[in-house]
Amino acid sequence: MSTAPDSAPSSPFTGVVPPVVTPLTEDGAVDTASLERLVGHLLEGGVHGLFALGSSGETAYLTPDQQQTVLETVTGAAAGQVPVLAGAIEPTTNRVVERARVAAKAGADAIVATAPFYTRTHVTELGPHFRQIAGSVELPLLAYDVPVCVHTKLAPATVLSLAAEGVLAGVKDSSGDDVGFRQLVLGSRELPGFAALTGHEVVVDGMLLGGADGVVPGLGNVDPRGYVRLYEAARRGDWAAAKAEQDRLARLFALVDAVEPGTASGTTGGIGGFKTALALRGVIRTPAVSPPMRAHTEPETARVRTCLEEAGLL
Amino acid sequence: MSTAPDSAPSSPFTGVVPPVVTPLTEDGAVDTASLERLVGHLLEGGVHGLFALGSSGETAYLTPDQQQTVLETVTGAAAGQVPVLAGAIEPTTNRVVERARVAAKAGADAIVATAPFYTRTHVTELGPHFRQIAGSVELPLLAYDVPVCVHTKLAPATVLSLAAEGVLAGVKDSSGDDVGFRQLVLGSRELPGFAALTGHEVVVDGMLLGGADGVVPGLGNVDPRGYVRLYEAARRGDWAAAKAEQDRLARLFALVDAVEPGTASGTTGGIGGFKTALALRGVIRTPAVSPPMRAHTEPETARVRTCLEEAGLL
Amino acid sequence: MSTAPDSAPSSPFTGVVPPVVTPLTEDGAVDTASLERLVGHLLEGGVHGLFALGSSGETAYLTPDQQQTVLETVTGAAAGQVPVLAGAIEPTTNRVVERARVAAKAGADAIVATAPFYTRTHVTELGPHFRQIAGSVELPLLAYDVPVCVHTKLAPATVLSLAAEGVLAGVKDSSGDDVGFRQLVLGSRELPGFAALTGHEVVVDGMLLGGADGVVPGLGNVDPRGYVRLYEAARRGDWAAAKAEQDRLARLFALVDAVEPGTASGTTGGIGGFKTALALRGVIRTPAVSPPMRAHTEPETARVRTCLEEAGLL
Amino acid sequence: MSTAPDSAPSSPFTGVVPPVVTPLTEDGAVDTASLERLVGHLLEGGVHGLFALGSSGETAYLTPDQQQTVLETVTGAAAGQVPVLAGAIEPTTNRVVERARVAAKAGADAIVATAPFYTRTHVTELGPHFRQIAGSVELPLLAYDVPVCVHTKLAPATVLSLAAEGVLAGVKDSSGDDVGFRQLVLGSRELPGFAALTGHEVVVDGMLLGGADGVVPGLGNVDPRGYVRLYEAARRGDWAAAKAEQDRLARLFALVDAVEPGTASGTTGGIGGFKTALALRGVIRTPAVSPPMRAHTEPETARVRTCLEEAGLL
Repeated sequence: MSTAPDSAPSSPFTGVVPPVVTPLTEDGAVDTASLERLVGHLLEGGVHGLFALGSSGETAYLTPDQQQTVLETVTGAAAGQVPVLAGAIEPTTNRVVERARVAAKAGADAIVATAPFYTRTHVTELGPHFRQIAGSVELPLLAYDVPVCVHTKLAPATVLSLAAEGVLAGVKDSSGDDVGFRQLVLGSRELPGFAALTGHEVVVDGMLLGGADGVVPGLGNVDPRGYVRLYEAARRGDWAAAKAEQDRLARLFALVDAVEPGTASGTTGGIGGFKTALALRGVIRTPAVSPPMRAHTEPETARVRTCLEEAGLL
Repeated sequence: MSTAPDSAPSSPFTGVVPPVVTPLTEDGAVDTASLERLVGHLLEGGVHGLFALGSSGETAYLTPDQQQTVLETVTGAAAGQVPVLAGAIEPTTNRVVERARVAAKAGADAIVATAPFYTRTHVTELGPHFRQIAGSVELPLLAYDVPVCVHTKLAPATVLSLAAEGVLAGVKDSSGDDVGFRQLVLGSRELPGFAALTGHEVVVDGMLLGGADGVVPGLGNVDPRGYVRLYEAARRGDWAAAKAEQDRLARLFALVDAVEPGTASGTTGGIGGFKTALALRGVIRTPAVSPPMRAHTEPETARVRTCLEEAGLL
Repeated sequence: MSTAPDSAPSSPFTGVVPPVVTPLTEDGAVDTASLERLVGHLLEGGVHGLFALGSSGETAYLTPDQQQTVLETVTGAAAGQVPVLAGAIEPTTNRVVERARVAAKAGADAIVATAPFYTRTHVTELGPHFRQIAGSVELPLLAYDVPVCVHTKLAPATVLSLAAEGVLAGVKDSSGDDVGFRQLVLGSRELPGFAALTGHEVVVDGMLLGGADGVVPGLGNVDPRGYVRLYEAARRGDWAAAKAEQDRLARLFALVDAVEPGTASGTTGGIGGFKTALALRGVIRTPAVSPPMRAHTEPETARVRTCLEEAGLL
Repeated sequence: MSTAPDSAPSSPFTGVVPPVVTPLTEDGAVDTASLERLVGHLLEGGVHGLFALGSSGETAYLTPDQQQTVLETVTGAAAGQVPVLAGAIEPTTNRVVERARVAAKAGADAIVATAPFYTRTHVTELGPHFRQIAGSVELPLLAYDVPVCVHTKLAPATVLSLAAEGVLAGVKDSSGDDVGFRQLVLGSRELPGFAALTGHEVVVDGMLLGGADGVVPGLGNVDPRGYVRLYEAARRGDWAAAKAEQDRLARLFALVDAVEPGTASGTTGGIGGFKTALALRGVIRTPAVSPPMRAHTEPETARVRTCLEEAGLL
């Protein structure tokens, strides 16, 4: 909605684009059958795109071979019905390029890459980093702004400058910097085809009101229909309906807090929570997560079940 | 708007509550005449409350005597027309209590206090801290969640628990954690009289849509009427108008970036920018700021002037 | 020892300079009788200076009146036998100046000030900040580099430049940046009279080997003689003896970990631990600490007692 | 030197163990001929071990294939003369295991692994992480404590507990927490064979005095003989000689600051500085670094040359 709210957005990467979780078997392999069911569940929910190999997809936990399996499974199951964005999440430029090329071969429609991590990144390195990635594959490149993981914030001015240059086709914003995101949205109005996507699943109504083009909600794995309803209400200007749907989803989001405080990472609470919910809903076979994360205990699983029941999803 | 949007909010601390800047003379004294004019300007703009001695009010730069002068001037000029919230921003409990008692004598209607700072604060100390402050003055206490200054984030659960206990009457949220703020708003629905105020002046439309009770915009010093229009549009459910007003204000907010990059703190850009704009508008006499901040240069002042002209405020 | 190890250091602020803790009565007043006993205990221990109103002195917890009482008590009890450094720890320049002037009147021999805090400090503000403080009192000024409290690190180049300019007479380094400290020591060799003091009480042997002029050990409140022995061994080049003494003191330092994990701040563990040890040793009357810190429980006190017994101090 | 200084250390991983930089050709391939010359240069310098694929080795910038090439080249060139430690630096457990198995096949003598990164790691995940890695290869495992890269600090208690359990054979400490390192050294005295290695190349004298078993100095690529002299002086208790050598090396370390301030990352200054110095010394063919880092400019190269000349290394 960077453009006027009643005109069609010109980016192909808009609407509800869930970061697809990666189902695993009990022994840690990618559970491709479950992943195919999950993609079907999301498409039936009406989502507008799929983001494979994002943070919620456990990309940082998967070996290169596993990543390739995930991506081929998702593009195969999506079968061109919606665009598939592929994370190429690696510490530095050359390694991102290597993953991006694999993704292009596997049929991805766009690449999503972060700032460098592990290394101490300097602001002057961001341009060369994204330019080199964009120059190495024939796919649109979206920047993934996730300082909680990479410890570098992408300034709106940096993103807008790279977008004007043709390097970036959009941003997936998980920065928590709502002020910066608003400035990005305002600044991108003259950049046709730029997609400003928010990763903050509990404030989507306000973000859409402010002009976001779409949302990448981890919780959208669990309730894709809810996010689609929210997005459609916003598209038609029914903000009261959008807000009511968002409030319902914000309550459902409590399932990420099912883990006993002080006993697991936030990542475990989130990814493990989504997977536990999906297993309870029968979409995936097991809620197994990658080490060193741990599985939800029985009482924690019961809390997730309660959240689903209260939301009418079980 | 924690309650249903069409019912009257039950907290007295709602709507547009600007954090009043503190005009100074060239030699660093509080310019009480300018401060009185500023309060008049804000009241004419239709604001619903005044927050004296907040971060934008340079509270951390003012000596105890100067703080008392500021507060007496603001309460005197407000003359009971709107409630006056007073910051009692000090590193630890006893020192906050000392400032809070002075504020109570000076006629403040509520106290605003942060988590302890300078010290390494532990989460178990937050309850005792706020309880002891609340128990020391006969005024409502609002928590000021500003991790960028105090380096402790107030978890929604902590705030809600202290609110349920009767310790906290509200929160002024400058945390940038939009997810946490939404959870706070949702969680406070059963707490009549709790005020959830956002300090993020460029996303007020979305925050009000999400249920915020009010806004504490530094930029509201410069354009109080704009924020009042935005708030009133939201109150009547005209979200398109609210968004349009917010977009205009978000562009005006660019005046905080008038300082030459790399030559001054963000605080200088913000507070100095607001003061420069107020001086250009003729509300205060000089844009002087406290050391170690520096004054805007001529080219920087010219940039602020351009922002004001583009917004139709000059 | 910035100069050759066998020449006399030319700064008056060298050797063992404990940051004096502030004994309190059960109702939170400064316990001046205990404070006088503590100063006597330190002087008998052979310390070379006293640092009043530092972090360990709970300066951030004391009201202005309490700070004045502390300082007058310490300078009175020291009676000119050793220099007294006074912390003027306030968020911004003008407030530091106000405290520094009170300290000068109370008989302090030097002022110790940090970078600004609470505010978002920019590197360009550090020069004006320290210059204005130094220009406001007729006392030597030492910079207190304590990023864990003020969230700004003083770069060696900044400190050295201000020292060459005559603004800074030394630094009290609690930054944990041992590389930066070494660079500071190396860089200050051509600055006669500059004092490089380390606040890291468990690595004093290595710091003295590297050229530190002195140490400001919180643990020195509890065992001043130990630190004096360590310093004297280093002065005469007996590094094996210095290391053995440091190892003993490093084991004693475990008393700061007597608090139950997850139930109190590190500050409580440290200051409360020192005070509990001093009360057990009969130097001060009670181990009371300021709110929102809490007192040590009985089991925690027993752990401190064990540390003292193992070190032969009970 | 966890054991008495005059007894032989029982760990095979002690002394001077430089983190070997990875020479590249102008087009970004691993320059194996230069790498072989570099290993020869280090062995001639008398080093006691080699750490391949560490941060200084640009491990985060190298693709899996490049990493394998580096390791095979280093082990081949070392030819069993000294132990080769191999970094297996990947975001999460399974990926570290994959790299560790490749390293074992390539002939490494030990694996070095960090805490997880990119993910939000919880303290409860550290045990499972290191246990699973240790259980997957038949090689000793050292923990690499580098919070500036992975944003998790390994607490001494955690490391010591895993060492007592047989999971960890040592630690490479680049945390800058000199207090924690001392506690680790003290605590590991009863753990025969545990190696406490410091990565802080400018405070090695003090670290060895405090009981460190060895040092992993990036600067040791440039001047291996200097670090060997320093280590040997410490071994024979000649601390004045150790300090003099360290001071010389600390001045040489200024070569990492040759890059124009504000124009490159600290990593570029460090790794690029070491490589530029090695190219100037004729050890490697080009100073090329991986993207998004940039090469040193001519003036920057001239500054590195001056550092080398002043140290008598050119």
